[in-house]
Amino acid sequence: MRGMWTMRSDTFIKSLSWEDKMKPEREVRLIQLGVGNVGRELIRQVLACRRLHRTELGLRLNYVALADIQGAIWKEDGLSDENLRLLAEEGAQSLDRLGPLKETGKVVRRTGEREGRMEIVVDVTAADTSSLLLTALERGCGLVLSNKIPLASSLSVYRRLTANRNNERVRYETTVGAGLPVVDTFQKLLDTGDTVRRIRGCFSGTLGYICSRLDEGVSFSTAVQEAKRLGYTEPDPRDDLAGTDVARKALILARLAGYDLETTDVVPESLFPTEMSSLSVEEFMAQLSSLDEGYRRRVAAASSRGNVLRYVAEVEEGRCRVRLAEVPRDSLLGALRGPENIVSFQTERYAANPLTIIGPGAGPPVTAAGVLSDILALARKWRD
Amino acid sequence: MRGMWTMRSDTFIKSLSWEDKMKPEREVRLIQLGVGNVGRELIRQVLACRRLHRTELGLRLNYVALADIQGAIWKEDGLSDENLRLLAEEGAQSLDRLGPLKETGKVVRRTGEREGRMEIVVDVTAADTSSLLLTALERGCGLVLSNKIPLASSLSVYRRLTANRNNERVRYETTVGAGLPVVDTFQKLLDTGDTVRRIRGCFSGTLGYICSRLDEGVSFSTAVQEAKRLGYTEPDPRDDLAGTDVARKALILARLAGYDLETTDVVPESLFPTEMSSLSVEEFMAQLSSLDEGYRRRVAAASSRGNVLRYVAEVEEGRCRVRLAEVPRDSLLGALRGPENIVSFQTERYAANPLTIIGPGAGPPVTAAGVLSDILALARKWRD
Repeated sequence: MRGMWTMRSDTFIKSLSWEDKMKPEREVRLIQLGVGNVGRELIRQVLACRRLHRTELGLRLNYVALADIQGAIWKEDGLSDENLRLLAEEGAQSLDRLGPLKETGKVVRRTGEREGRMEIVVDVTAADTSSLLLTALERGCGLVLSNKIPLASSLSVYRRLTANRNNERVRYETTVGAGLPVVDTFQKLLDTGDTVRRIRGCFSGTLGYICSRLDEGVSFSTAVQEAKRLGYTEPDPRDDLAGTDVARKALILARLAGYDLETTDVVPESLFPTEMSSLSVEEFMAQLSSLDEGYRRRVAAASSRGNVLRYVAEVEEGRCRVRLAEVPRDSLLGALRGPENIVSFQTERYAANPLTIIGPGAGPPVTAAGVLSDILALARKWRD
Repeated sequence: MRGMWTMRSDTFIKSLSWEDKMKPEREVRLIQLGVGNVGRELIRQVLACRRLHRTELGLRLNYVALADIQGAIWKEDGLSDENLRLLAEEGAQSLDRLGPLKETGKVVRRTGEREGRMEIVVDVTAADTSSLLLTALERGCGLVLSNKIPLASSLSVYRRLTANRNNERVRYETTVGAGLPVVDTFQKLLDTGDTVRRIRGCFSGTLGYICSRLDEGVSFSTAVQEAKRLGYTEPDPRDDLAGTDVARKALILARLAGYDLETTDVVPESLFPTEMSSLSVEEFMAQLSSLDEGYRRRVAAASSRGNVLRYVAEVEEGRCRVRLAEVPRDSLLGALRGPENIVSFQTERYAANPLTIIGPGAGPPVTAAGVLSDILALARKWRD
């Protein structure tokens, strides 16, 4: 064993000749929609990777526009790193100060003006940006989405966004499992002629946490209260407990598998009864304990069969189901703990033992890294 | 839920207009070294995917050459699908019949003759093809390797093969974990500025099977005999038991992590003593039971600590270790069964919960699919 070792980038940089260092970089122009937690983290990562991307990939990611509901900004030659740092720190509220266009639509309509320049619209919002994205595509931009809404609403929008795969200008790895390599892996299976038999997964860290706590004998209401306190849930925990977010992810995978499903075809099991929908958050939290006995019985029944409860999404034989299901305690899904996500692809080639990916499926650092990786994939495909 | 559903490719094909169907395909010329199990399966998959690749990717993979130790063949305009089917069936022995060049080196030296044509040299051998590959690179070809030897021998060859990442002409996903997305996922973590803390994995289905059987109280000699009978081991099981193959995979990951390690820096723990190296296979199998008591004690000691034995590769703090290690019974590594591989990336961003990939890490169908996926990745990057 040698005593010395060096990290990858340093080794590489030292090995570069002067000519390599001076080589002109290829510019990729970024138009980012959304300056929330993921958006700001993405800006930070782009800044932190400047040297790495220059020396190893010969790329410079140049932010020409940022937009949010607060406002929007367009700088033809790109925002300075100084301004980007400010935006990463302060978020959307600093957009105004930097000279706003006031409207996201205007920003998108400006894309593609400088022909031959590679422009990528990065959507890290959680809004229905469908028409903006379709406009951007039409204008020749690439698209990178962490936003699930456009791909998980109407089938016709999904088709238009993913049509003409020859162009390969749309990537959305982080819509399922954040930075975990779910969409890309699935795409590779399909592109090599494999046939999907079943996809199974747990795509909600929040619901995963609650299910783990139920395993441990904690009551449902306590588990939800804990998850809220730990910041795992949305401000209104019903946004998680309704299963809508999981249903969106499952629908995206089902559509990728070729199932022509509409949003209405995937009705997630809600973990609370409909009549609790109209309550205020405080009332809802106060009434949670009324559900405890039902869940206690379900957990006990599952346990008597060697099973545990997991909030499972399943794509199989043209159907997509999203529900609280019993899984064997000693299976990979049963062994899942806390905020982790899991997805298992059972295919013609991965028949006896599925291909399984496990890891944290949420959080700004891993989500932003997944978005950045998609940007790099587009940028590298478009080289030369 | 709608009653009807259709599979992806059919849906897509039906939606194509006449113009789409007539669109000229982009040609990618393949020069394949190796016509063994993986090589033949790859030919079959390329043939089976012809329609998919034409309609969805606008690509035609055209085999212009095939080479093996048995012989070699070069057809300037590409081998017919009929001949390819013959080769897929009969393997290398039919090369002679199709008009051999007799020498692999000659085949590689012919690459790059038709400028502007995308040529990919696919190495599915298990030989030291380093100089051939470097020649092919020099002549402008892309490289796709399932062959670990060139990347896992001298550091200088590794560096030359992976140097100048700007070109991005070399892919080797299947050298670690076959079709599992290990190398690509790792590369994405690095390219987005993440820092590796530890990589841990089990990369041998054979040793995984033997370890599982030890868990179940089966003796070492019986487990090895079973694995041999089931076809999990090489004809000489010592090729697996020495850990050399696992060490090669670990070394490739370590080098990707930026550790400047030579082959001699990674000495795998052998599961048999050196003095048994000189025996014939029959003698070796007959003497295996002399090792049973030692393994029985090791398994018992591990078990008393709640652990099981796994043949683990670990990359951490500049070092790369490959050995039979104790892991907690209820960890992901401990839960591993039979022929599955696992790899866990613990990084700056995946600190508390690592990113983990599990699945079969060997076998012609999944390995060939991984090679095909690498070919498509190069082909798509080089479009336009």
